[in-house]
Amino acid sequence: MSKKVAVYRKEHFNAAHRLNNPAWTAEENQRVFGLCNNPNYHGHNYDLIVKVVGEPNPETGYVIDMKELSSLIKELVLDKFDHKNLNLDTKEFEHLNPSAENIAIVIYDLLKDKLDPSLDLQIRLYETERNFVEYPA
Amino acid sequence: MSKKVAVYRKEHFNAAHRLNNPAWTAEENQRVFGLCNNPNYHGHNYDLIVKVVGEPNPETGYVIDMKELSSLIKELVLDKFDHKNLNLDTKEFEHLNPSAENIAIVIYDLLKDKLDPSLDLQIRLYETERNFVEYPA
Amino acid sequence: MSKKVAVYRKEHFNAAHRLNNPAWTAEENQRVFGLCNNPNYHGHNYDLIVKVVGEPNPETGYVIDMKELSSLIKELVLDKFDHKNLNLDTKEFEHLNPSAENIAIVIYDLLKDKLDPSLDLQIRLYETERNFVEYPA
Amino acid sequence: MSKKVAVYRKEHFNAAHRLNNPAWTAEENQRVFGLCNNPNYHGHNYDLIVKVVGEPNPETGYVIDMKELSSLIKELVLDKFDHKNLNLDTKEFEHLNPSAENIAIVIYDLLKDKLDPSLDLQIRLYETERNFVEYPA
Amino acid sequence: MSKKVAVYRKEHFNAAHRLNNPAWTAEENQRVFGLCNNPNYHGHNYDLIVKVVGEPNPETGYVIDMKELSSLIKELVLDKFDHKNLNLDTKEFEHLNPSAENIAIVIYDLLKDKLDPSLDLQIRLYETERNFVEYPA
Amino acid sequence: MSKKVAVYRKEHFNAAHRLNNPAWTAEENQRVFGLCNNPNYHGHNYDLIVKVVGEPNPETGYVIDMKELSSLIKELVLDKFDHKNLNLDTKEFEHLNPSAENIAIVIYDLLKDKLDPSLDLQIRLYETERNFVEYPA
Repeated sequence: MSKKVAVYRKEHFNAAHRLNNPAWTAEENQRVFGLCNNPNYHGHNYDLIVKVVGEPNPETGYVIDMKELSSLIKELVLDKFDHKNLNLDTKEFEHLNPSAENIAIVIYDLLKDKLDPSLDLQIRLYETERNFVEYPA
Repeated sequence: MSKKVAVYRKEHFNAAHRLNNPAWTAEENQRVFGLCNNPNYHGHNYDLIVKVVGEPNPETGYVIDMKELSSLIKELVLDKFDHKNLNLDTKEFEHLNPSAENIAIVIYDLLKDKLDPSLDLQIRLYETERNFVEYPA
Repeated sequence: MSKKVAVYRKEHFNAAHRLNNPAWTAEENQRVFGLCNNPNYHGHNYDLIVKVVGEPNPETGYVIDMKELSSLIKELVLDKFDHKNLNLDTKEFEHLNPSAENIAIVIYDLLKDKLDPSLDLQIRLYETERNFVEYPA
Repeated sequence: MSKKVAVYRKEHFNAAHRLNNPAWTAEENQRVFGLCNNPNYHGHNYDLIVKVVGEPNPETGYVIDMKELSSLIKELVLDKFDHKNLNLDTKEFEHLNPSAENIAIVIYDLLKDKLDPSLDLQIRLYETERNFVEYPA
Repeated sequence: MSKKVAVYRKEHFNAAHRLNNPAWTAEENQRVFGLCNNPNYHGHNYDLIVKVVGEPNPETGYVIDMKELSSLIKELVLDKFDHKNLNLDTKEFEHLNPSAENIAIVIYDLLKDKLDPSLDLQIRLYETERNFVEYPA
Repeated sequence: MSKKVAVYRKEHFNAAHRLNNPAWTAEENQRVFGLCNNPNYHGHNYDLIVKVVGEPNPETGYVIDMKELSSLIKELVLDKFDHKNLNLDTKEFEHLNPSAENIAIVIYDLLKDKLDPSLDLQIRLYETERNFVEYPA
């Protein structure tokens, strides 16, 4: 019988961003995104929780080695986004609004490709302690 | 292909309550509810996490505007329950025991009615850091 | 040479209270205390951190046995205030407004009497995660 | 219509452990488990969150009495593992590697047997704030 | 006898910043400030804890009304820094490096002027959960 | 005028230990230290907060570079204690009871020697979320 276990690894990165839709006027952007539209950017400490689901390896008791998962997140996500301006410094958000929802989807796609296909993946991203998102829902 | 994302908003309120079943004797209530049956009430800082699931709007990257969600929670839930005695000051718990389970169900019903029907809703309510509930499960 | 160490023990209790000055009119109380003046009470999860300062006993390495400190707090503070209405159920707040400041002073006095006089004591009380007090300052 | 609610109870225990596969050489164990293979053991504060899902009893508003759930966890899990060496002091891990995944599965099995069969159970175990697991996934 | 009590109010703001000394070369700035020198800025969720020390007013039991303190912080600090680029959008950091130390000193000076002179003030500022500062020490 | 600022860095390590006084009988040790005397050891996730007080350097705005402070803690404290058995694997606790009080004093002494003498140092050590110590008091 299969015994699927979820393992979670929490990481974090700091980044600047602004929310803006280039197809809209400045007024429309200001009306919809408010303070988050500040043209000089603002920023967040993003807390990232990566969930991986699979069956523990009977020889190790591990679904995945947490050190390997942490290294994978560092290489594919943190080195790309930490201490960066998401709008200016990353190709992922050159034409995509860096809402928490979109950042979570981007992180999912970055990690999914490199993960063993037998493992399921879910991303939780805290923009603040009070606003956070999860993908896939 | 649909890309459903969950967004979460954390809010809080403080309230007094007591657990009591009017169909029972005082002894039975004391036996079942213990300290929570104190006739003079006790109270909690309730932490409320509202989860909304839907597809991000391609123009904004938002499932729902967090400022609107926060306003909706304030208007429909916090203004009704914050700094109140749930048993004495609210019609919702006039004839319903304000257990954490029942408070979560009531909050779900208050918010569900006003939310876009395409969005799914789930309520998590912390009565203390160590006791919390979720509805629907 | 003396090596003073501070030890901290975190406990918690839930209580109902209201802020009210009986020398004032209802309007004045409402104006000053706002929602906290609700005549039907509201409530909080109080987090209590007790700090005790002294020199570690060379035989145990302890300033004070944390199990003894925890028992002392339970006996003198939690059994008195947990799941109670501070205004109605306790003699300490029969004639004293149960503001966080006053609750901290009362807890200090309750514990100071029973603690070894060579030990210093300080009380930190969280009324919410965002409002807390410390006595003595 | 059924209204299933999840209730959660958070408990904790402290324990020593080491990760080791007796079928492997010391070098292989060191290579795979790294610092966690220390032959003299290391330890953790394990935070345990037990989730129970069912319909609230209409007379009490409870899915399960949290005091009973807490007592059950204390009797079946904490008394067995708290302040213990998982490898040396427990029969559960005499021949099973005490990875977080395996500890969660063991705790699930210990509790499932004693819980009303109409209730669903899920275990979340924090080995550290940044590494945690959930079973069943 | 005087009974001084400390009261604490926790607030938060999000901002972008970069660390840079204009008297230095780009290489020197990069060497000293590392990732924090990113010319496109990065950002943080700043948690701010304001400590005010004084004697409780015997009529209210308050050192200071927390609603007033919260409004003062909002008006003097949050409205100025929240969702801003500290380097570009504020006059306080036009010629001052926005290190956590300097931000805490600036916030102290902004609040001290408007606070009753009988009250003592201390600022704690969390740049991340793991890096924080306090002024005056 | 001097403007002293405190900076804090949070780190963590996991370790096994037992409390025991070799000058006492097994019964006496059991009576005083209880579960903490388990001869097979138990363990903790220790959260360590290092406080350093000094004047910010006018050129950097730093009291001390947090990356340097973090490296110093890693080299002098974490590499020595993380994933270790404090009683068996460290010379510091070969003849000293590893109570939280004593661990904090040892960490203070390890760091004080290598820190610029113009800087003041204080150690806070969390053995659990509810039991923690500070040295010097």
